[in-house]
Amino acid sequence: MIRALTIRTPGKGMHEITREIGGVVSEWGGQEGLCTVFVRHTSCSLVIQENADPSARRDLEAWFDRAAPESDPAYSHTAEGADDMPSHIRAALTAVSLSIPVMDGRLALGTWQGVYLFEHRRSPHTRQVVVHVS
Amino acid sequence: MIRALTIRTPGKGMHEITREIGGVVSEWGGQEGLCTVFVRHTSCSLVIQENADPSARRDLEAWFDRAAPESDPAYSHTAEGADDMPSHIRAALTAVSLSIPVMDGRLALGTWQGVYLFEHRRSPHTRQVVVHVS
Amino acid sequence: MIRALTIRTPGKGMHEITREIGGVVSEWGGQEGLCTVFVRHTSCSLVIQENADPSARRDLEAWFDRAAPESDPAYSHTAEGADDMPSHIRAALTAVSLSIPVMDGRLALGTWQGVYLFEHRRSPHTRQVVVHVS
Repeated sequence: MIRALTIRTPGKGMHEITREIGGVVSEWGGQEGLCTVFVRHTSCSLVIQENADPSARRDLEAWFDRAAPESDPAYSHTAEGADDMPSHIRAALTAVSLSIPVMDGRLALGTWQGVYLFEHRRSPHTRQVVVHVS
Repeated sequence: MIRALTIRTPGKGMHEITREIGGVVSEWGGQEGLCTVFVRHTSCSLVIQENADPSARRDLEAWFDRAAPESDPAYSHTAEGADDMPSHIRAALTAVSLSIPVMDGRLALGTWQGVYLFEHRRSPHTRQVVVHVS
Repeated sequence: MIRALTIRTPGKGMHEITREIGGVVSEWGGQEGLCTVFVRHTSCSLVIQENADPSARRDLEAWFDRAAPESDPAYSHTAEGADDMPSHIRAALTAVSLSIPVMDGRLALGTWQGVYLFEHRRSPHTRQVVVHVS
């Protein structure tokens, strides 16, 4: 089964989508399988991270801000804004697709794992996430 | 269905293989499914990136050149050449496998997404890419 | 078929699990398919790397130690130990899921590819790895 989800992000940062993905698995209705999540963009990405302490997410976002900073004079691709080129770098370093087994009818995530859409652009965006379950 | 593709790369940089992957999906012939791409090497990798402005790819390649430079005195694994150890680091930071949903008989890539074989070695190489569609 | 494997790691570093994954593929018994490996944690991850020269693994581990160091004063998430926040960063930069085609009844890995559980915490841990084959 395939569902295309539309996710609205409020701007830069990690936005949890575990519930939306789980909803597709529930609709699918099987007990055992594989769920693949794919993001149709090059300036946001996917990451599975700790869903407990928000400070872990803030530190992770800050690491990417340091590793691939905005307005780095080394960039030549600047026509789409200071936040565009670092977006592509951060997307390449994280994931465009994630595959999560389904066990007992649910995503086999660990206790502390959440699935996040990692928005790399400053302004709010409407993002398309395709979920495949079989 | 599985197909093993042979891709010749001209040396370091991102080499687009979207058409080759799409060819396997067309040959498969189904409407809805999942296409997984896997690279059988540890000194090249896969990345989905912007297929429009070449400056974005050049900046991305340059970022990896800075983050995992050749001839870093910190490396001890130097017997296979100055470009070998950075190749392994760049491969670990990007992807060895990518899964892309198939919708309406085609890869469900976004408008600006292209699939690239990211060659990390300086000299031309012959690379094997395995494509699974089901 | 789904199998949940329990892997004991001796602490920080790359721990090869190719044989354990291959064992699930053998038990499955099919000739052609796709094997997906998923790690149920946010402080360890998966990586496919060179299985020949151990110096490549040591250099790779050392690169991550430099890129996401322990005890960086920039971290605010420190309650779980100095090795916790870098663990999350290293996990985000590598992989939580990997999909490897199965050909002729075996993982279609390249000659020099091994599958590693990359433990990011200092102390020994018991980790859960879910393997799906179909």
